[in-house]
Amino acid sequence: MRYELYYWPSTPGRGEFVRLALEEGAADYVDVARKKGGMTKLMKLMNGPRGATPPFAPPFLKAGNLLIGQTANILLYLGGELGLAPANAAGRLWANQLQLTMADFATEAHDTHHPIASSLYYEQQKREAKRFSEAFRTERMPKFLGYFEKVLARNPRGDRYLVGARLTYADLSLYEIVAGLDYAFPRAMRRLARRHPLVMALRDRVAARPRIAAYLASPRRLPFDQVGIFRHYPALDG
Amino acid sequence: MRYELYYWPSTPGRGEFVRLALEEGAADYVDVARKKGGMTKLMKLMNGPRGATPPFAPPFLKAGNLLIGQTANILLYLGGELGLAPANAAGRLWANQLQLTMADFATEAHDTHHPIASSLYYEQQKREAKRFSEAFRTERMPKFLGYFEKVLARNPRGDRYLVGARLTYADLSLYEIVAGLDYAFPRAMRRLARRHPLVMALRDRVAARPRIAAYLASPRRLPFDQVGIFRHYPALDG
Repeated sequence: MRYELYYWPSTPGRGEFVRLALEEGAADYVDVARKKGGMTKLMKLMNGPRGATPPFAPPFLKAGNLLIGQTANILLYLGGELGLAPANAAGRLWANQLQLTMADFATEAHDTHHPIASSLYYEQQKREAKRFSEAFRTERMPKFLGYFEKVLARNPRGDRYLVGARLTYADLSLYEIVAGLDYAFPRAMRRLARRHPLVMALRDRVAARPRIAAYLASPRRLPFDQVGIFRHYPALDG
Repeated sequence: MRYELYYWPSTPGRGEFVRLALEEGAADYVDVARKKGGMTKLMKLMNGPRGATPPFAPPFLKAGNLLIGQTANILLYLGGELGLAPANAAGRLWANQLQLTMADFATEAHDTHHPIASSLYYEQQKREAKRFSEAFRTERMPKFLGYFEKVLARNPRGDRYLVGARLTYADLSLYEIVAGLDYAFPRAMRRLARRHPLVMALRDRVAARPRIAAYLASPRRLPFDQVGIFRHYPALDG
């Protein structure tokens, strides 16, 4: 099956969680909006007058007759299709639970630079962003990173992966979040890295996987920037 | 099976999405933290030194050997167990997608009074709350409500339910969100109700279901308050 991924063409954003799964799963896929005329197709699928299951926002995935939206929902589907989730129901629920916790983490990382409204520029909410970021760096980052460190430490199948003894899409997503935080909050992350060795080892282990390493070195991987979830504003990094 | 629901005992919050499914599904369940000694059990399961699948935050559900966290993930599980989701995979993904979009909506509704940090009081972020709420009322509420109105209008099985021809947990959750917004933003909702007749009819249809009506009239239903997701501050209602 050839999958069609629909996401904004100019930033890694939430689409990147899906791209990493497609790449690691060696899936045949098209990143539609990065092709000529692709943005028109994206907008039509999202806002056009038809379709029984319209997505609220990108990313969404076309898989045969299915049109699937919401990042964690796409990964729930792809996890089964691409062998990136456990085969049993309990393991699938656990991977989904971790993915949803990462979705919350990513939303808060986004809100560091947009605490008031996504429709305003960062410059229009700088003061609020500084306040939000201080709480994010000192309370939320340690809480989320500490949680995933605990999950790795307690995994009965070993501390190499979040779920069971093999890589799942949850590991790929944790890689993306840590890489994004490294970019956005280098000072805070230097301080936090020491206390979260299992999380940092997971990030390195994912980056070294042959398919992921090849993807990260390719033009398909979009660099972190100043329009996506993770942005580097020194003023927000303490 | 007797389910154990773990959620903060004093506010409807995210636990309410789970309670509505348990009630409509006529499930045998205990609302653990509202019983004597229950808070100790909740804190121990969440922060104790053991457990291979620790939850990040309430709500979480104990179902036999499973400990399931994240509201949408609990509902994904209960939907199958209680007959509150379609039997086919495509329908389950669609219900989950709608639930995740509602989770985003609920998070933004919460952030109207806590745009800077959950660890601060509303009074410490009143100015920011007012700015956030204005964008929420004028941009986000119409966008989310308009989306669910569109989903109802386009349902090939009729506009009575979000997914297919029968009630699912997604309908129960949309009821809770609309009821919460009616409480928190009565002025904004009076204006918006006229343009979203299908959503408002769904709210009334869910409230009139025999099990839901009995539940809403019982002491098991916690009233909306000033500590949960939905809070009524007239200053934030325009």
